[in-house]
Amino acid sequence: MSTPKQIKLGFVLFGAGPGYDDWRHPDAVVDASTNIEHYRRQARVAEAGKFDFLFVADSVFITERSSPHYLNRFEPLTILSALAGATSRIGLVGTLTSSYTEPYNVARQFASLDLISGGRAGWNVVTSWLSGTAANFGKAEHPQHETRYRLAAEHLHVVQGLWDSYEDDAFPRDKQRGVFLDPGKQHQLNHKGEFFSVRGPLNISRSPQGQPVIFQAGASEEGRNFAARHAEALFVEAGTLEATIAYAEDIRRRATAFGRAPDSYGLFPGLRTVVAPTEEEARRKYKEAQSLVRIEEALKQLGVPFDGYDFSQHPLDEAFPELPASAYASNRSVSERIAGFARDNKLTLRETALRSASPREEFVGSPVQVADAIQRWFESGAIAGFNYVESLPRQLDAFVELVIPILQERGLYKRDYTATTLRGHLDFAVPENRYTLARRTGAAA
Amino acid sequence: MSTPKQIKLGFVLFGAGPGYDDWRHPDAVVDASTNIEHYRRQARVAEAGKFDFLFVADSVFITERSSPHYLNRFEPLTILSALAGATSRIGLVGTLTSSYTEPYNVARQFASLDLISGGRAGWNVVTSWLSGTAANFGKAEHPQHETRYRLAAEHLHVVQGLWDSYEDDAFPRDKQRGVFLDPGKQHQLNHKGEFFSVRGPLNISRSPQGQPVIFQAGASEEGRNFAARHAEALFVEAGTLEATIAYAEDIRRRATAFGRAPDSYGLFPGLRTVVAPTEEEARRKYKEAQSLVRIEEALKQLGVPFDGYDFSQHPLDEAFPELPASAYASNRSVSERIAGFARDNKLTLRETALRSASPREEFVGSPVQVADAIQRWFESGAIAGFNYVESLPRQLDAFVELVIPILQERGLYKRDYTATTLRGHLDFAVPENRYTLARRTGAAA
Ligand SMILES: Cc1cc2nc3c(=O)[nH]c(=O)nc-3n(C[C@H](O)[C@H](O)[C@H](O)COP(=O)(O)O)c2cc1C
Ligand SMILES: Cc1cc2nc3c(=O)[nH]c(=O)nc-3n(C[C@H](O)[C@H](O)[C@H](O)COP(=O)(O)O)c2cc1C
Repeated sequence: MSTPKQIKLGFVLFGAGPGYDDWRHPDAVVDASTNIEHYRRQARVAEAGKFDFLFVADSVFITERSSPHYLNRFEPLTILSALAGATSRIGLVGTLTSSYTEPYNVARQFASLDLISGGRAGWNVVTSWLSGTAANFGKAEHPQHETRYRLAAEHLHVVQGLWDSYEDDAFPRDKQRGVFLDPGKQHQLNHKGEFFSVRGPLNISRSPQGQPVIFQAGASEEGRNFAARHAEALFVEAGTLEATIAYAEDIRRRATAFGRAPDSYGLFPGLRTVVAPTEEEARRKYKEAQSLVRIEEALKQLGVPFDGYDFSQHPLDEAFPELPASAYASNRSVSERIAGFARDNKLTLRETALRSASPREEFVGSPVQVADAIQRWFESGAIAGFNYVESLPRQLDAFVELVIPILQERGLYKRDYTATTLRGHLDFAVPENRYTLARRTGAAA
Repeated sequence: MSTPKQIKLGFVLFGAGPGYDDWRHPDAVVDASTNIEHYRRQARVAEAGKFDFLFVADSVFITERSSPHYLNRFEPLTILSALAGATSRIGLVGTLTSSYTEPYNVARQFASLDLISGGRAGWNVVTSWLSGTAANFGKAEHPQHETRYRLAAEHLHVVQGLWDSYEDDAFPRDKQRGVFLDPGKQHQLNHKGEFFSVRGPLNISRSPQGQPVIFQAGASEEGRNFAARHAEALFVEAGTLEATIAYAEDIRRRATAFGRAPDSYGLFPGLRTVVAPTEEEARRKYKEAQSLVRIEEALKQLGVPFDGYDFSQHPLDEAFPELPASAYASNRSVSERIAGFARDNKLTLRETALRSASPREEFVGSPVQVADAIQRWFESGAIAGFNYVESLPRQLDAFVELVIPILQERGLYKRDYTATTLRGHLDFAVPENRYTLARRTGAAA
């Protein structure tokens, strides 16, 4: 990956927060995950802060033990379309599973969001790790991890093929001559593969950015290969800066082997700050938030990457327990990282759960301290920017007010948007339509 | 059906118009079907005219012969979500096929639109009649007409079941007690049927209108039974007032047999006006528009309900041709009505095609003439209102400016909204959550 000159930022629309008890904060908007006004407000603050994109996560399986944010939430394509009108520049990135959707419908909805927003859409491709998901879609069993990524690759291949159904000049719309469509510039995909067979064409044209930007967050062997081969923006939760650098290096090797140029993708680790005008105030807020976390809720949260495993059956103040293989099967990379960290550092189950529920202390402090930490990470050269998650109510506002100006002062962050599309914000080139390219170069599409 | 005291109105977002050559009108916005500003403007004019809902049609299969509007268009859920923010009262009705979608995803997207808009969503359930559709979804063949309606009924049953996943008081969100969800008020559907098996719960709560309103437009035997049993708003294109009255009577008989109350549904025939300050001007505009219609395009348009049949192979000035059975198989009711009308009235192929491409003369004229025709239809007692389609650029504006005030003056149309939800606008009751009802009455859900 080549490092951009300036830090890119995404903002995660995460209801009252990612933690199971975040909604209990005295200032938390309790119904945030289904409150359109709350999201409109956040979107506008993020845009005032010149963020490059909004990001909406997703899942299609819940139980009564799911996180408050997951229990009741907007669906990504609809909420992002609604926010398209409340904003004018910021990118709109939605998560959708490739495991339980039809490529034709997915291609269409993202293409539609992309046109509605003037070229600001992105798709975060996920494969759904919770095995219970199968039961919501009439499947006897959830596909294995490796199968899910093979399916994801073919799904994406079809979606991207459909997005090129029309060349950019396919519609002369010439009233005098009576020519609406140039039929030679409408293309059938005629895909026949292992999982999908799709004729096309799609019934929607390309946007000013050509195609929506592909996001992904692979951590496993298959996930990293998928990311290195197909993703443009990569989310990464490696934990430390060192691990993030190692991940970036690993992705660079794989991407190079796949023939990809370093400027065609970028990494986005998560970022959760607790910033306040003074360090003392920031530390106080941090402690205050931690005091709201109940151990039972932290245990449920810990269970998520373990396919919803019920940790409450184990003693809290003993070593991290031995778990059945099934708890590791569906999100092996993340679950193994957590368990490995607990064992290496001899953490009890309680310590492991509480640690998973809090932001990293590195980003807790005064505006200058937080800006310094951000600069340190960025100047490692491993990342394109961050995916910002609010760890406390109105932290986004504090971050925009207190930290962004310092980064701008240091030349590390833009003072205004210079582009109108998500691809433009992220410095990615507009992909030429494959059929136009083929005609121009004489190659096969 | 009981007739409401006042006329209800829907407005169809139809790009530059339903006719194949409508985009050629000198004032037509040529890229209307993918122009968000155009749709925002229309939505606002319709809301200023106190329309009850916006309606977006849909299809998921095109060829290079498809209508300009179908070739390149927004997807319904995304465009309606975008318009939710540009409006505050008007209902938002989207078409989605039950034949090529997953109930879990459909339930979620409509529920999300419903919450985003404060209770203004509606779903027009269609089964997709073009047999080519199968090829975009990896199916060996398009299901038969009768199978499609059996599937639609089960699909809708699952979707409506999922919409009740949470009772209205399922989320205490009590910070002090730390209770976000009352788990006894979250329900699994556990549906297992012929086509679908879906566990649930859905991950989104109900809106102020309880559930999105169900729209449908059945013309065949199966379609009418579906409508009479499940639909709340019924689109009808019977042609004449007499045929509409007969249709309404037929639906009333069926609905009564299914145990439905007359105030739980209403009929909406299409309405296309050409209105101008004077009759002469209206007639001139009408002629002008007709002169733009090319016979080749009218033939393509005629082919649509005949599963895309190519009429250009037949002589234009001879009787309406004999067609292969396959041309009638997929949308039998509509194709047979057109062919029957042509034969009964001894129309040539050319006459049949041109007739299908123009609005009915009954609604061409001065404001008072058009208002009179509307009143005549409404006072038949057969209908709840109309589904308005623009037949010329800015006809919506002319209609709102010239005809609506007359209808208001006559007491036939509201002067302002009295409700905030689509159900409220249409005078339909909010359905009680099935589990709440069961608890209250001691019956099974
Ligand atoms: C920032 C970030 C956001 C993610 N968002 C989602 C999501 O919304 N839905 C989902 O199912 N998985 C999500 N994931 C999980 C990844 O898709 C992936 O499953 C996980 O990182 C494990 O990698 P693997 O699939 O290679 O095992 C996210 C991961 C990260 C790091
Ligand atoms: C006003 C109106 C709008 C319709 N919109 C759609 C649509 O958007 N997509 C679609 O596939 N069919 C649409 N239809 C077709 C109907 O769903 C139905 O297939 C048709 O009326 C024939 O009835 P049948 O299905 O009972 O044979 C529409 C029909 C009417 C009258």
